[in-house]
This record gives sequence, C-alpha cells and structure tokens, in this order.
Amino acid sequence: MKEYDVITIGAGGACYPAAFRLKQSGYNVLMVDEKGIMSGNCLSEGCVPSKTIIETVHNYKRMREFYNFKINYSDIIKRKDRVQDIRYKSHNEELNVANLEVLKGTASIIDENTVEVNINNDINSKERFHYKHLIIGSGATTSILKIDGYQYCITSKDLYAFKHSIDELPESIAIIGAGYIGIETASFLSILGVKVELIEIMDSVLKGMDIEAVNKLLPLLPEMNLHLNNGVQSIEKYGNKFKVNIMDKSNKSDNVIVDKVLMATGRSPVIPDGVKNLGIEYDRRGIRVNSGMQTNIKNIYATGDVNGIAPLFHAAKRQSLIAAHNIMNGDKLTDYFNSSAIPFTLFTIPQMAFVGLLPDELNRRGINYIRTTYDIKDDTLAEAYNEMCGEIDLFFEENSMKLLGGYIIGNDAGNIINEIALGIEKGLTARDFAEMAHQHPMTFEGIDTAARKLF
Amino acid sequence: MKEYDVITIGAGGACYPAAFRLKQSGYNVLMVDEKGIMSGNCLSEGCVPSKTIIETVHNYKRMREFYNFKINYSDIIKRKDRVQDIRYKSHNEELNVANLEVLKGTASIIDENTVEVNINNDINSKERFHYKHLIIGSGATTSILKIDGYQYCITSKDLYAFKHSIDELPESIAIIGAGYIGIETASFLSILGVKVELIEIMDSVLKGMDIEAVNKLLPLLPEMNLHLNNGVQSIEKYGNKFKVNIMDKSNKSDNVIVDKVLMATGRSPVIPDGVKNLGIEYDRRGIRVNSGMQTNIKNIYATGDVNGIAPLFHAAKRQSLIAAHNIMNGDKLTDYFNSSAIPFTLFTIPQMAFVGLLPDELNRRGINYIRTTYDIKDDTLAEAYNEMCGEIDLFFEENSMKLLGGYIIGNDAGNIINEIALGIEKGLTARDFAEMAHQHPMTFEGIDTAARKLF
Amino acid sequence: MKEYDVITIGAGGACYPAAFRLKQSGYNVLMVDEKGIMSGNCLSEGCVPSKTIIETVHNYKRMREFYNFKINYSDIIKRKDRVQDIRYKSHNEELNVANLEVLKGTASIIDENTVEVNINNDINSKERFHYKHLIIGSGATTSILKIDGYQYCITSKDLYAFKHSIDELPESIAIIGAGYIGIETASFLSILGVKVELIEIMDSVLKGMDIEAVNKLLPLLPEMNLHLNNGVQSIEKYGNKFKVNIMDKSNKSDNVIVDKVLMATGRSPVIPDGVKNLGIEYDRRGIRVNSGMQTNIKNIYATGDVNGIAPLFHAAKRQSLIAAHNIMNGDKLTDYFNSSAIPFTLFTIPQMAFVGLLPDELNRRGINYIRTTYDIKDDTLAEAYNEMCGEIDLFFEENSMKLLGGYIIGNDAGNIINEIALGIEKGLTARDFAEMAHQHPMTFEGIDTAARKLF
Amino acid sequence: MKEYDVITIGAGGACYPAAFRLKQSGYNVLMVDEKGIMSGNCLSEGCVPSKTIIETVHNYKRMREFYNFKINYSDIIKRKDRVQDIRYKSHNEELNVANLEVLKGTASIIDENTVEVNINNDINSKERFHYKHLIIGSGATTSILKIDGYQYCITSKDLYAFKHSIDELPESIAIIGAGYIGIETASFLSILGVKVELIEIMDSVLKGMDIEAVNKLLPLLPEMNLHLNNGVQSIEKYGNKFKVNIMDKSNKSDNVIVDKVLMATGRSPVIPDGVKNLGIEYDRRGIRVNSGMQTNIKNIYATGDVNGIAPLFHAAKRQSLIAAHNIMNGDKLTDYFNSSAIPFTLFTIPQMAFVGLLPDELNRRGINYIRTTYDIKDDTLAEAYNEMCGEIDLFFEENSMKLLGGYIIGNDAGNIINEIALGIEKGLTARDFAEMAHQHPMTFEGIDTAARKLF
Repeated sequence: MKEYDVITIGAGGACYPAAFRLKQSGYNVLMVDEKGIMSGNCLSEGCVPSKTIIETVHNYKRMREFYNFKINYSDIIKRKDRVQDIRYKSHNEELNVANLEVLKGTASIIDENTVEVNINNDINSKERFHYKHLIIGSGATTSILKIDGYQYCITSKDLYAFKHSIDELPESIAIIGAGYIGIETASFLSILGVKVELIEIMDSVLKGMDIEAVNKLLPLLPEMNLHLNNGVQSIEKYGNKFKVNIMDKSNKSDNVIVDKVLMATGRSPVIPDGVKNLGIEYDRRGIRVNSGMQTNIKNIYATGDVNGIAPLFHAAKRQSLIAAHNIMNGDKLTDYFNSSAIPFTLFTIPQMAFVGLLPDELNRRGINYIRTTYDIKDDTLAEAYNEMCGEIDLFFEENSMKLLGGYIIGNDAGNIINEIALGIEKGLTARDFAEMAHQHPMTFEGIDTAARKLF
Repeated sequence: MKEYDVITIGAGGACYPAAFRLKQSGYNVLMVDEKGIMSGNCLSEGCVPSKTIIETVHNYKRMREFYNFKINYSDIIKRKDRVQDIRYKSHNEELNVANLEVLKGTASIIDENTVEVNINNDINSKERFHYKHLIIGSGATTSILKIDGYQYCITSKDLYAFKHSIDELPESIAIIGAGYIGIETASFLSILGVKVELIEIMDSVLKGMDIEAVNKLLPLLPEMNLHLNNGVQSIEKYGNKFKVNIMDKSNKSDNVIVDKVLMATGRSPVIPDGVKNLGIEYDRRGIRVNSGMQTNIKNIYATGDVNGIAPLFHAAKRQSLIAAHNIMNGDKLTDYFNSSAIPFTLFTIPQMAFVGLLPDELNRRGINYIRTTYDIKDDTLAEAYNEMCGEIDLFFEENSMKLLGGYIIGNDAGNIINEIALGIEKGLTARDFAEMAHQHPMTFEGIDTAARKLF
Repeated sequence: MKEYDVITIGAGGACYPAAFRLKQSGYNVLMVDEKGIMSGNCLSEGCVPSKTIIETVHNYKRMREFYNFKINYSDIIKRKDRVQDIRYKSHNEELNVANLEVLKGTASIIDENTVEVNINNDINSKERFHYKHLIIGSGATTSILKIDGYQYCITSKDLYAFKHSIDELPESIAIIGAGYIGIETASFLSILGVKVELIEIMDSVLKGMDIEAVNKLLPLLPEMNLHLNNGVQSIEKYGNKFKVNIMDKSNKSDNVIVDKVLMATGRSPVIPDGVKNLGIEYDRRGIRVNSGMQTNIKNIYATGDVNGIAPLFHAAKRQSLIAAHNIMNGDKLTDYFNSSAIPFTLFTIPQMAFVGLLPDELNRRGINYIRTTYDIKDDTLAEAYNEMCGEIDLFFEENSMKLLGGYIIGNDAGNIINEIALGIEKGLTARDFAEMAHQHPMTFEGIDTAARKLF
Repeated sequence: MKEYDVITIGAGGACYPAAFRLKQSGYNVLMVDEKGIMSGNCLSEGCVPSKTIIETVHNYKRMREFYNFKINYSDIIKRKDRVQDIRYKSHNEELNVANLEVLKGTASIIDENTVEVNINNDINSKERFHYKHLIIGSGATTSILKIDGYQYCITSKDLYAFKHSIDELPESIAIIGAGYIGIETASFLSILGVKVELIEIMDSVLKGMDIEAVNKLLPLLPEMNLHLNNGVQSIEKYGNKFKVNIMDKSNKSDNVIVDKVLMATGRSPVIPDGVKNLGIEYDRRGIRVNSGMQTNIKNIYATGDVNGIAPLFHAAKRQSLIAAHNIMNGDKLTDYFNSSAIPFTLFTIPQMAFVGLLPDELNRRGINYIRTTYDIKDDTLAEAYNEMCGEIDLFFEENSMKLLGGYIIGNDAGNIINEIALGIEKGLTARDFAEMAHQHPMTFEGIDTAARKLF
C-alpha cells in the first residue's frame, strides 16, 4: 500500500494551497480528484467565469450611455472561455513545477489512515492508500429540486462551463431561487435585455444576509419580476418555451412562460463515502470542524465548501493553508480561521459587499454599536461613472470603537470591502480610519469620510 | 476691525476641512479666496475633471475590444462638466448648512494677527481682519516657461476648466513636460487617437518617482513619441499648426509640428503677500512646516500644495484637519502628518500607484528590506479585463517584516494602494497580509499572494 | 456673574486632568471643590496611602524570611505621610504653574449654564457662575451602614488620612464588608500580626468580581477569619473592646470581640445638588453618561467615581481627558471610554489584577473563548522571591484569537496587567504575544509562555 | 549511523525550545551537550542566580531603612541554590515528559548532514550521527585575559555556580571590566558593604550601550571606585590579599589591594569544531545568520549567544523557536527575528532597561525623532519605596509618531520595558500610549503620562 504524509480529497481551492505548502516543506502529498485536474467549482462553474461575464456587462452598461450598441453575447462567452483556458493551463504548469500529483478518481475513507480510490472513476480498479493526515476538500454541488420537469432546467454549469456554456441569450428566463447565484445571474441578464422572472419560496431575496443591507440593494438592481413566497410546482414544455407553475403561501397558483429555466436553489456539501462510518461529525451544512479546520478526528481536516462555514474561494484557500499549518505543527493548532474577517461580495450590478457583524447579528448578540454612513450618491468617482447610488456603512463597538463589520453597496464595493476586512482582523478603530488619507477621487475616500463623522 | 478665531487663505481642500471642523467646535471662521467659492485646483482643473475623462476613456478602451466604435469627445466633456457642476453645487450647499463664509478677495498677511483683503479683488476696497490662528492654504499654480511663443500653449486649465474645456480632439499634440500631468494627458489622448509628442528636458519621465517603478510602467503606456533630454527652444505658428523647436543635450536641434501644445512643466506654490515680511520661512518648494503643519510662527499653519510636502487633494484634506486639531489644542501639537502613508496614484492607462518607501529611497537610507512581487499578468480579474500587465511590489523591513512601501502597476492600482497605505500606517507585517483572505477574484488577492511568498 | 468656559465640580483625578488640558488650549477654567485643594479620594484616603503601606508590608514579609524582626507600624505611617506630603505639594505647584484656580466651596447646579457655590462652604456667602461646559467629578464617599453602634466604627479615612491616621496596630479588628477595601486591609493587617475578623453579608468575598479568579485568590491570602452570609446587627462597647453582633441567613447569632471595627461597606456617588432638578439622569450607581462621558445634557459631563462605571483613579483621569477632548470638539464626541481596557488591581498580598472579559462575563454573553494559563508556581522570579503561587490566565476569542481578558494572581500582577490591557485595547492576538521575547527572568515571561500553548 | 531529523549542539535556551517544538510536531530530535543536562549559562552562571541575589539585596536595601540589620550572605546563597535546584529538577521532568534525549558529549560538525560526538566527552568513544537539520546553540563563555596572575581571579562561575558559589563576602573586590556583568556585581556587592574597585580599559562603563542612558544611570549607582581608561597589567599575591596593578592611557601606574579579583571582561561565542571546515560563515562576534537564524548553509541554524546578535536568554529562546518554525517550513523562512523588540535589562540597583533605537543609534541613522520623558522622581510608587530617581524616555519617529525605542532607569524598569517592546513590535504610536489608563499607582503610569506630552 502506497504511503503518503498527506492525502487531499479534492484538488480545488480547498486542497491545492495546502498541497503546495506541505510539498514545499518536504511532505509527500497526493491529491485525489474526480475530474483529475487541479481546479474546483470556482473555476469550472463559479466565480471566475461569472465574474468575467458580469464585469464585461458592467463595462458595457457604462459605455452604452455614450454609444448605444448591442454587444454580442457569444463574444462575452469567448472572453470567458479564454480566461478559463489561461487558468487551467496555469494550474497545470504549477503542478508540474511543484512535482505534485493529482490522481483521478473518487476517494472513500476506509479508516483513520486509509483511503480507497476507484482509479479513473472505474469501480473495478480500486486502490488503497495510506495517509498520516487527510484533508477533505470535496466541495459542494448544486442542490436540485426534484420537482416535475426539473430535467428541463439548466444550472450554473450550463451558464459557465468551459467551452460548453450557452452562448446565445434567451428572450426570457425564469430563475428558481433568489440566493446569490440567482440574483447575480438575474442582474446581468436583465442588463443584456433578457426578461427575468425570479422565483423565491421565502419572503425575501438573499435569505441569510443582513436584511437592512438587502433592502437597500433591492431597489438599485436592474429590472426583474420578483415572485416572493412562491414555490415552483412543476415545469412543463410549452411550445418552444417552458411554463413554470408556481404557487404562493395562500395556495394561489400562477405561471410564467419563458425560454429558459435556471435552477439556482443553493448548494450542498459533497460528503465523501466513509465519513459517516468513521464517525466524523457532520450535519446538513457540512462536516464539523474547529477553528483550526480539524474534524473530531485529529489528523483529518475539512476545508472549503464541504464544511459550510464560508463557501467562498478565498475562504477555502485560507482554510486550506490553516489545515497545512496545523498538520505541520503535528496536528496541534497553530493557525485559526477568523470568519469575521472574510469578505463576501455579491457581484450584482451594482455590487454589494459585506464582512463581519452587521445589524441583524449585532442585535441578536446584544452588542452596542455605533454606525456611520457614507453616501455614494455624493461620491466623486460614482459621479464620474454616472452610478450615483449606494452607500458604505460601518459598525463600531460602542466602547472600544473597534470596527465590527461593514457593508458597501455600489461602486467598488468588492474592492473596498478588503480594507474593511483588514480593519476588523487587526482590531482597528474609527479613529484609525478617520486619520487615513485615501486616494482621491476614489470611493475608498468614503471610509475616512464616514469614520470622521465619529470624530 | 472684524475679529475671527481662524482665517484661512484659500477655500480649497487645504482649508475647508479645517474650517468646517473648527466651526463645529464653536470657532468663528472666515475663508478668504480669490475665486470667492469653496473649491481648489482639484475640482477646477485637477483630479476631478481629469479622472472623469480618464475613467471614461479607460472604459471605452475596454469595450472597444467588443465593438469598434468612435466615442464622441464632446460627450466625455459633457460628463465631466456635469460632475463639476454637481460638486460645485454640493460645496455651496455644505457652506450654507454650516453657515460658513467665503470672502472673495486676495489676502495679504500684515502681522501675526492681521490680514488685509482686497474685497472682490478690488485694490481700492481693502479691509483688515484680526485672527487668532491663520491657515495658509493658497495652493499652487502651473509654472509657465516663458520661452518664445509660450502664449500659444494651452495648460491643464484649458483641458479641464468647468464649461470652458476644449471639447474637440486635436490630431496631434506636443506636451512639454513629462511629469504626472503630462504623462496622464498623453496616456488618454493617445488612446483616443491623438498623436502625442512628449518633450522632457530631463533624462527620464516622472522625475522624482522611483526609477524602477517608472521603468516598469513605461513600456505599458499607450503609444507616444518620447523626446527625452530635450529642451523646448521656441514655439511658432506654422499654418494652422504649431512648430515646437527642441534641442537636446548635445545641441542637436529638431522640431515637431502639432495642432496643440500643452505646457505641463510643473506647479509652484502660491505664496501670499506678507509671508516674507513676517519672517515665515519658505523656499522654492513652499512654506516650511513641522509635522503638525505649523510654520515657524506658532499660530500660523500652512497646508496643502503651498507647503509642497505632498501636493495631492487627499493629503491637503488630511493636513487641513491636522491644522484644525492643533489649533483646537491651543497651538500645541496633538495631530501629526505621516507622509509615509499618503498614497499617490498616476492615472495613466494602466495606472501606477505607490506609497511609503520604495527601492530608490530605501537604498538611499541604507535600510535592509525584503521584497515580494505579485504578477498581474497572472491575475484572474486582469485576465477578465484582458489587461494582463503590471505587478504589485511590496517592501518589508528585514528584521521586523513591517511593511515600508509598495507600488502597483496595472489593474485597480488606485484602489489597492489604499490597503497598502493602511498597512504602513498601522505597522502591519508580511504575515498580517499573508493571513488575509482578500475577495476573489479581485486583484487585491495579489496582496496576500505576494505576502505569502515570505511565509 | 463671572463667566467661565468650563467649570468642574471637584478637583480630583476626575477633574484636574481636564482642567489642565483645557486651560492649555485657551479655555477659561474654574475648579470648585469642598476641600479647596487639588486632590481626590485617591490621595486623601485611597490608593496612594494604602499602596504605600501595603508595599512596605510586602517588602517586610519578604525580608522577614532572612531576619526575623518586628517593623514599627508608626514608621510605616510616617513613610505614608511623607508620600502624601510630597504629592499635595506637587499638586499645588502644578496649579501655580498652570495658573489654575480651585475655589473652595460646594457647587449646586442651577441650570444648563449656571452653578452656585457657597464660598468656603459658608451658606451665607453664595455666588453664581456661568459656564459653557460643566464637568461633574464630585466622586464617591464611604457608605455608612446606620446600624446600632455604627459610631464606634472607623473608616478608611481613619486608616489613611494625611497626618491623622491611626499609627498603632490593634491586636484584633473586625472588618465589615469583604469588598476590595476590606480584603486589602485584612491582608496587610494580618501579615503585621493583627487578628482579623472579616464579616460579609453576601455568600462570597469580592462580590462582582469574577468568581473563578476570586476562588483562586482566597486560599493564598494571609490568615483571616471569614464570616460569610453574616449581617452585622449591632456594635457595642465591651470594656476596652467592641463586641460586634452578627447573624447569618438562618438567623443564627454570633459575635466577635475586637479592638477596632472598620466599616468597609462600599462607596456611593456624591450627586451634587441640582442634578435631579435639571433632569440629569442618574441612578443608584451614579450619573449616566455615554461613552464620551456626556450626560443626557450635551454640555454637561460626569467623570470618575460619580458615574460609577470604573471607580479607579486611572479610569477617572482617562475619563476626565475624554470629557476635555469632547468639550474642545464642540460637545460632539471625538474621544470614547473603553472600559474593557481598564486594569483593576487588588492590592492584597499576593496581588490579583484583571482586565477585560473574564469567564463569568464571557459565559453570560455567550462568547466562545479559548483560555491559556501560566503557573506562577513555576516562575523563576517567584521562586527567587519565595512566592511560588498564583497564575496568569488569558482569554482569547475563539475565531479571531484576539485577547478579550485576563487575570493574574501573584507576583507582579499589578505590573503585568498593563500589558494585558494594552493587548485588549489594540486588538492583539495570541500569536502577537507568543512571538514576544519578554525580559528574563521576570514574571512577564508568563505572557509569552502562556500564549505559546496556543501555537 | 543513527539518523535524526534535527540535532542541536547545546541544550540551553538556544536549543531546547526548538527541540520541544519539533518533537511535538513529530520530528526525531537529539540534543548534544557537554554537560549532558538541559540548561545553559543562564541557569548555571547567569541571570537566574544573579537575579535571585540582586532582588534579595534590593529588598534588603528597602527594608534597612525601617530596621537596620545585617543580612547573612550565606542565606542569600542558600536561596539562590534552592532556586537553581528547583529549575534543574523541573528541566529534567520536562525532558522526561517530552521523551527527549540529551546526549553528553562535544559535537563536531563533519559535513552538511553529519556530526561526530565524543560520548561522555571521552575522545576514545566517538560516534557519528546523521541529521537533516542542525541547530548550533553552543553559547558563549567568559573571555579570560591571560595577564600575569590571571589564575588568581574568580569569574561569574565562582559567584553563581550551583552549590559551589562563594558564600562569604570579601571586604573588598576588584572587578576587571565594567560591562554589564561587572556593573551588576559591583552594584549589589557595594550595597552589602563590600568596597568595590571597578577597572575598565575603555573611557566609559557599559561600552556599546547608549551613552546618554548610561550617563544618567551612573550617578544613581551605589558607591564604587571607578578606574576608567585603565588596563590591568598584572595581579600578584599580597599577603592574604591581592594587588592589582593597573596603568592608564598616559602610562601612569597605580594599584589596588583587595581580597578578591573578579574577571568580567566579556564573553565570546563557542564555535564548534567543523564550522570553519564546512565553510559556515562566522566572525569574532559569532556565526552569521539571516533574520530566520539560518547560516549560509540552508539546513544549519545558529541560535542564541553563539551568533552574538542579542546574547540574552529571552532572545535565545525566541531565536530557537524561529529556527524550529523555519525547519518545519522546509528550511524556507516563515518566522523572522526582530532584534528591535528585544528588551535588555541591566539588573543594577536601580535597574536600567532599554529596547529598540536610542539616541546614539537614531542619530547615526539620521532618523528624525521626538522624545518624551517621565521623571520617576515624581512617581508615586517610587515615593512609596523612597527610590525617587530615574526616568522613562520614549523615542518616536517624527512623522508617523511610531515608537522606535525607549529606556527606563529606576523603579520597575525591567517590568515596564516589556510594554515598550510590545509597542515597538506592533508599530504603536504616541497616541496609542497616551490613551491607555495604566494601573495607578504603578510606575507604568509614566508611559501614558510621557506620551500625553505629545498630545
């Protein structure tokens, strides 16, 4: 039986940062991945392709004010494919340079020191490997609602898959689920002229995010028909189109007729075989870990989407390194995950980004806080872009004046949030920000302007 | 004689932040300004109009890859005018709300407690005012080289002035001076199809900036003809055009024939009358101040471009507040200016931004440093924009691993530089950055990626 | 009516720091104080005299191991008087240098801009003064339980008053109240050979402090008879002695016969006349203020013991300056009080010190924390002193690993606590401490040793 | 040949922290030490015994004011022996718990992966061991001046060795060398009534330390006869005494007649055999390392006194851990030594402590700084101890106001310096300290009082 110091289940952002780190320190590492290549959801169907499309659409929207032309969607898809192509190639090269292995296959956990892999996903070709430390980074996958007609739906894979994405715009689309994938997709499709029907069974979009922030974002989004409190009953063919039958809380039925139906009903962790048998604790959200990414079994770690703590590429990468550091420390913790300093950006147009504790959570915990706000309506750069909407909201602990959280809606939200995250991580106070001279005329100025209201 | 607690000479970014702050604390404040309105160079001829134009051109460049159209320059100028209009109006409203006065006129300093103003710039209408504290924020102005034919030149005022900017593109332009104004202008005009002749008497562009960084930027700039080591001898009419006669260090003459000539030979501080008489120390660079913005006379402060320390709007604003805080503390220092944490962004396409100590200065001071670099060629977002060029360079003190400086060339330079500045100000180390999880896929990721190379 | 920019009610640590600060910035300031001198409880009957005595007793205890002699208590009192003498004189000199006034008398608040003072405490000699800002720093006073025979009791004033302290040790003493004053006094008297009867109505000593910490301290204290759950019914003369009658929760009576009885039943805020009439909010604990020390009336501040937030000299001094800074900012907040970073030291032998959030409070708030401990039994310096007892306990927030609180029992507790407070204030993490190289062989080493257990 | 992941040459503070750390992470570790036990100079002849004696003498001095007795020096030595006994035993126990080996013998380096040890220091019993990583922590030893009669001298070993120290005080002593060992010894012996002749060949005591600080300390030290600029020519027997012949720069001879002569002429690194052969770079100061403690050979580290960077126990311990962390990272740096944040305390009576950059060095580097001072003459606690002397001096970078260095002379210097070191390490500013409320009445208050002078 081949022996490895470390085996990872998966080869995406939850695994490869650790693999490279450990390899560099002399560890013998094997990555096992179904696809057999180094990359996770982010690249194949997540943030990389979606962000490429969204940024292009955003630029298009800005320029359309100066010259009213119609952009070719297939050109956007070509750009997306090119970006994916570059990234896949660069991942391959990194593997070669580091002399790291990705074994194609699905890993099952046999015991505290053994996994079994069906090589090339062939169940007749099983092999066992010994490990000292295991990192489970098997990710998450789209949850499919098995309603009547669900097979007519497309998923984010159809929108974003490398070289196989839809490259023609439908006239209309129904999106089932108003979580972040649904809303981001609705946002750019609407700008491109697609009629969007957004269907959500809950009473609000973006459930789980701060209500105040979401309510401020909503009126700023591109036009879309919002069907809240509506469950999808079935989907049926309707000529060249589809009919999506919905029903609200009072059992009132309705339907929308559209060219495409996107299922965007959330994502679930992919729990490898053997997790349950071995007694590794997990629940619906994912595998349970401590702040050092350790499961209840000391030499087994779970990182990235599979633990459900912060299903984001940049969180996965950080967690992966934390696992590596703790492995290098003999499975004794030396690095810890601070979820309060992980930024989240919703790539709608305009963007919304947030980090740390926001009003819903601050109130729930009974923390006294002081808020300060910068209105992006008055921001010079936003005026230059003719995107005068949104705001920066910062929340400070009342006594210490330490930054606890913040959200940004509008221009450069996904950039600005990084400085807010750093401020939380380093325990900075309102005064620390008030005394900075941010570059003018950038929306970052809003940070010091807002902070100065408390000084 | 009317008495004021505080008088400011000027009503731009070097003055009004202090004026508002002091007014709020109960001080009786008068701003005296030649233009009689609240605004400085930044708004009338500086960063606000130029940035509006440049950002629009940048967006245009990005979109032109998808659809090859010609943008109307007068539309860009209309956008610029609208932004200036909004800002002038908002300044006026702020004045009214705060019940603050701007007196139109030119102020001369009579003695340590008196200024004289020629009301409405009418020398027959002089009035004296008593002050307890004085803030000199009279700014800087374009230095005009009085060569033969200099009257044919335009200046940045002609490019950017509210409602009076040139709104038709010349076919060709000669720019005298390759400082930041010259380079920024050359950069966007070139993208818009203008043939640019950039003439510089020194042996390099952007003299005074870090040589290594400048040398990395240069090959990435849009096409322009660079005439280094060339002095302009004279400018003459040449039909509808102008002939600019230049001569190099070896006395070799040459000329360029262009539609417009822009004089961009730097800016000089505007020293108010009376400064010399009263014995306030100053030199060619500007009025000398300590790190609390105090001149050698304890109740007289000099802020913004007039002191020459950091001629940037955001620096002026910070200095203005420092003066206010020290005035409120009885002219005893309580707030200090840290020029090491003031970011500078060159709004070329691509941008270059820097802050703190860079290699030239680090070597001059004999500081041992460790560098780390992130290549924006490999950046996901840069790939999405098809702008795969540039880099992030960070410099850390060798023992303490504290961040000393950094420069960024390429995507989001002017955004990213803010976090670098914060890191310097707060004494953060390479590890502090390495442990951050910056938003993916944003170029900010480059900060943690670079820092991790040292861990 | 005389006009002042600022009037302070009181001239102790809650007032004079603000008075000096404001005077320096050009404010016209008057301090009004019953005693007519600059000094508060700390100097006249609090930490200065008590600490002088306790430190001397501690040194004596250490040296007695080498040479068994009896120290003369009146010599200790002489040392204490000399220290108080130096401090009173130095306060006087500071007043003269700053040209600041202390008016002898009791101030009543008439309205939002007027106080009335009975000059020299003579009710027939009242004068009114106008103020723009008022600082109430009237302190606190010993709460006297008006039980039968209370007039036989001494208070901390009798122990510590300048030139009027008891300078002969009783053979035995009953101390009513096991708060910090009772325990500190019991501690040093016991070492000097006095038989101590400590009577407390609650079920524990040091009520309000963290139970875990108190329980660890208790067995380390010098010998004393502890009567918990016992109320004092009456005190009667008993020959040359006193008989203190006590009764427990089950109505069981008992008594102790002692030479002296010390009443140490806590302290109450001194609320000036007029506070209620003017509608300034207050309760049993003191006058209510926001984190900027402002009462519900914007130009009226309450600092120090009178607001009951942190009845300590160093907290009062900080609060006083916060009030000054906010006054200088036009009664708009610019400085805030962070009670989480105020250290408290119990000057028992051995000492106990703490700051921030401790287990009781962490649990109450539902904060997940990680603890680390250093055992002072193994500390080199403690071994050198032959005082091998106590521990350092630090508490970190589970995700961010930021320091939330700490307590120290044993050698140098009152010194070490300062670094812990700084760590909380600046948001430092376990790693930040783990990487420090504290001076060897000092008990401060325990900080990094403890922190390293988490790395 | 036995194989080890890591071998350490030495088993003191430069080695065992790494050994424990690495063992815990699963590394196979061997310590080789001449003495065959875990302990370095600090315990056998350095800070532990000296500090125990000095602290006892300091307490004695304080108490003598109250009661004039003569302390028995042999009792002090007994206390010292007991402390050493405890520490040796506790070290042994730690070894057992960790299952770590100390091999008795002297190690020679054979090649990049081999050492040879003469087991039990027997040259006929040599054995070779293979290593992947090597830590050289062989320490330093007293430099002996081989002048005529040098054999009559005692060294610090005679003063401090476990169970073999001199336990009777001489009437007089000559100390050759006024470095920190000479001065500390002179200081406590003088208080105990010994006549001290301190002979130094240079023009100042404590050469290499900041001149300003040293000059402030000198007049506060106990009485001693200082012979500066004097070399010792020879030492001869003189009845029961010794005659020490000295000569000054102008060749003027003199002598002192004393009971004992202490040689305290500094310490030199102990360079193991093989270092030169293998090409490991070193000089008179010690083995050269980078800031990650790596020598020019990547898998060989040098920590503690042997590299001469900061010959202090707490520096050695930190360096040892840095080496461990870098070994665990595959000999790629991940942890760095910041010598600017290592405190040094001179355990004279009174103490002097310092850290970071002081005036000599600041001036040498051309750094603009701002100083602030707290006078311990006015310190409450110093008054309580009747030790009203000394000061706290803090030095801040002029623009950023970041703390660069500080020194303390007087009460609690060795405690307070820790907070100063933390401030330097974390980049704290004058304001950060000004806003702290240090425990009253402790000399730590001086930190915020001093910092507030700059606010």
